[in-house]
Amino acid sequence: MASASSAAAAPASEDRIGLPPRLRRAETVLRMRTDRIVLVLEHSTDFQNIAACVRTAESFGIQTVYVVQSATMRKDHALSSQRDEGDIRAVLRAAAGEDDSPSTPVVSTGDADEAAEPSALGVKLSASKAAHAWVDLKPMGSIAECVEALRADGRTIWATDLTPGAQLLATPGEAAVLRGMGLYGNSGPVEGEAATAPGPAPAGMTCLPRKLAIVMGRETDGISPAFRAAADSVVFLPMYGFAESFNLSVATALVLQRLLEICPEAHGEMSLERRAGLRRDWFERLLRSTSLRGDHERFISMAGADDAARGDKATAGDGLLMTDLRRGNKRAMWNKKMKRRLGAVDEQMGRFDVEAAVTASKRGRMEAQRDVGDAAATAAATPAAAAAAAAGEEAAEQPTA
Amino acid sequence: MASASSAAAAPASEDRIGLPPRLRRAETVLRMRTDRIVLVLEHSTDFQNIAACVRTAESFGIQTVYVVQSATMRKDHALSSQRDEGDIRAVLRAAAGEDDSPSTPVVSTGDADEAAEPSALGVKLSASKAAHAWVDLKPMGSIAECVEALRADGRTIWATDLTPGAQLLATPGEAAVLRGMGLYGNSGPVEGEAATAPGPAPAGMTCLPRKLAIVMGRETDGISPAFRAAADSVVFLPMYGFAESFNLSVATALVLQRLLEICPEAHGEMSLERRAGLRRDWFERLLRSTSLRGDHERFISMAGADDAARGDKATAGDGLLMTDLRRGNKRAMWNKKMKRRLGAVDEQMGRFDVEAAVTASKRGRMEAQRDVGDAAATAAATPAAAAAAAAGEEAAEQPTA
Repeated sequence: MASASSAAAAPASEDRIGLPPRLRRAETVLRMRTDRIVLVLEHSTDFQNIAACVRTAESFGIQTVYVVQSATMRKDHALSSQRDEGDIRAVLRAAAGEDDSPSTPVVSTGDADEAAEPSALGVKLSASKAAHAWVDLKPMGSIAECVEALRADGRTIWATDLTPGAQLLATPGEAAVLRGMGLYGNSGPVEGEAATAPGPAPAGMTCLPRKLAIVMGRETDGISPAFRAAADSVVFLPMYGFAESFNLSVATALVLQRLLEICPEAHGEMSLERRAGLRRDWFERLLRSTSLRGDHERFISMAGADDAARGDKATAGDGLLMTDLRRGNKRAMWNKKMKRRLGAVDEQMGRFDVEAAVTASKRGRMEAQRDVGDAAATAAATPAAAAAAAAGEEAAEQPTA
Repeated sequence: MASASSAAAAPASEDRIGLPPRLRRAETVLRMRTDRIVLVLEHSTDFQNIAACVRTAESFGIQTVYVVQSATMRKDHALSSQRDEGDIRAVLRAAAGEDDSPSTPVVSTGDADEAAEPSALGVKLSASKAAHAWVDLKPMGSIAECVEALRADGRTIWATDLTPGAQLLATPGEAAVLRGMGLYGNSGPVEGEAATAPGPAPAGMTCLPRKLAIVMGRETDGISPAFRAAADSVVFLPMYGFAESFNLSVATALVLQRLLEICPEAHGEMSLERRAGLRRDWFERLLRSTSLRGDHERFISMAGADDAARGDKATAGDGLLMTDLRRGNKRAMWNKKMKRRLGAVDEQMGRFDVEAAVTASKRGRMEAQRDVGDAAATAAATPAAAAAAAAGEEAAEQPTA
């Protein structure tokens, strides 16, 4: 249903680009989705935390999240006892809506909800919290039901816990440091512990099972005895300080990042069939409210053919994929609004007093440069790049027809 | 001031162990503390978030955290304009106290506050949130002041931001995956962006400057233009999904974990002099309310001598350091209390219905095992280890005299 005028105006460009930007974004995200790892959240006492964990999982490309619901959770959130996926999604939506909290743009990838509502472009940022709309949520009524579902899916279960017999989740470099310190090594049983429990191997987990379920316990008391007993392994992240634990969303994020470091090939590990199913769903949803809604079949087969030609591992597809998922431009636009709101504070703080900061910076930079490794050599170009970021992406974001 | 009786009862053991457990814990934490990386938090709008970030930094062994305070923050929290460290610490204490939120025991390391109050052992867990008591907090009145302080300390400044010209923070394995996908690579300028800004090098940052300050922007709008302009480099974590950003505490945790992966040798990188100063402070505080308070000089010189003999890198010191910072036992004790509170819910959910979960698990395990890599080979031993965790550490935790 591409309009005749646009087809006439830029047929070469459409041939080259192949997909409208929002679908290229979706296709790029899709090729990085993984089925190798699923996240399991034991019935948390707080839906905000579940929403935060789901958002993090989505950011890492985890496609499936199991949520073991508690009776109180169902009661508090008026969920039906049938554990309908729609139920939990509705609650997550509400939790995300209330959540005007913590969101720092280490990276902006732009959110699909906004793409689906072009009118909101550049103003509505909250939709990025609707990450749950793009993952498969699996509500579970009990731990036994969840374990059964994971086994039926052929999954090895790793539980995260502080159990002394747990296996270390460390990169080789970190494991070497820990060995040097004699920390979390195989130097015998944990202090004060019965000598029957062997220490973890110093290298810890060095590869992932072919199909992994990683289980995070609830906030208050961690993994449940039932899930620990059902797990094939118990794993932990080394900690270095006095603090006893990370909070749930932080722990979930760190564990997922670590698993994907141990096994970077898990990125994009998904069968062609599975990707085809998700593609159909995503493309239809993304085009529903646009003038391109009739073209989804064409786009689906275009992307599917490219995917099939490249095999079931994620690989670059020129013209079909984006080379960057960040959207600096939107953030810059939004900053203008925020600047007004935060203006008074910012002025007082010299937040926008770039000159003062740069002067202070220059004074020390020359000495600092002497001490710097290769990594910082690329330094000075950055401010220019920042300014350049404010240009042009908006146009590219519009559908091609 | 060790009592004569205990000295007579176990002189051999004291010779061998050298330090009371709480000081061994502190000495172990101290040897993993780093000065190579400092964390800088731009004036956040929420003290809970700052508290969460400080706790995470502490867990990773980051000793110094700069907090750029805003005028509203000072007003809301009745902080003096002199930016006294005590002020901000008091607010963090309050924030931590109110915070009965998210704490999942991926690892338990035990907290020093509890050690300082033996009467609370095994009951009071909230003190783990007092992580801020064990880091150097540097309140800053403005960005320019903060930049100046960082330069005076000889620091290279990296800001985290979505700026398209930013450098990738990726491990080599992840960078390879991204290259394969053509994502965040040097494949030309970011889509829609002026071609003047070069793409980041595909390998991203592969080493850290000798003295690094990593700056996290505030929740609402990320890094400030002033800090971005003052930074030597801007860095970002690759994201793979639709979600636009991680929340602040999650982003901080992921960035710190990544920096320490890129540069594992940063763990424990601190001068002997600096460690000596912290040791004196920590040991005095940890012994203040105990019968050993008169012995701190002896312990300080004992630990200091060992440290000096081993050089300024963290290395194992038999008898002076712990081999594991987790405290499974306390969590197990606490679970008993929590079980009562959560009993009704748990019973409904089969949370403690270990048998049902194990049965469900066994059914699928054999098939799953076929698919599993080496890593899961260690599987079955875990439940036994979990049970063993409930034993004995309490005794070892008592001071030797």
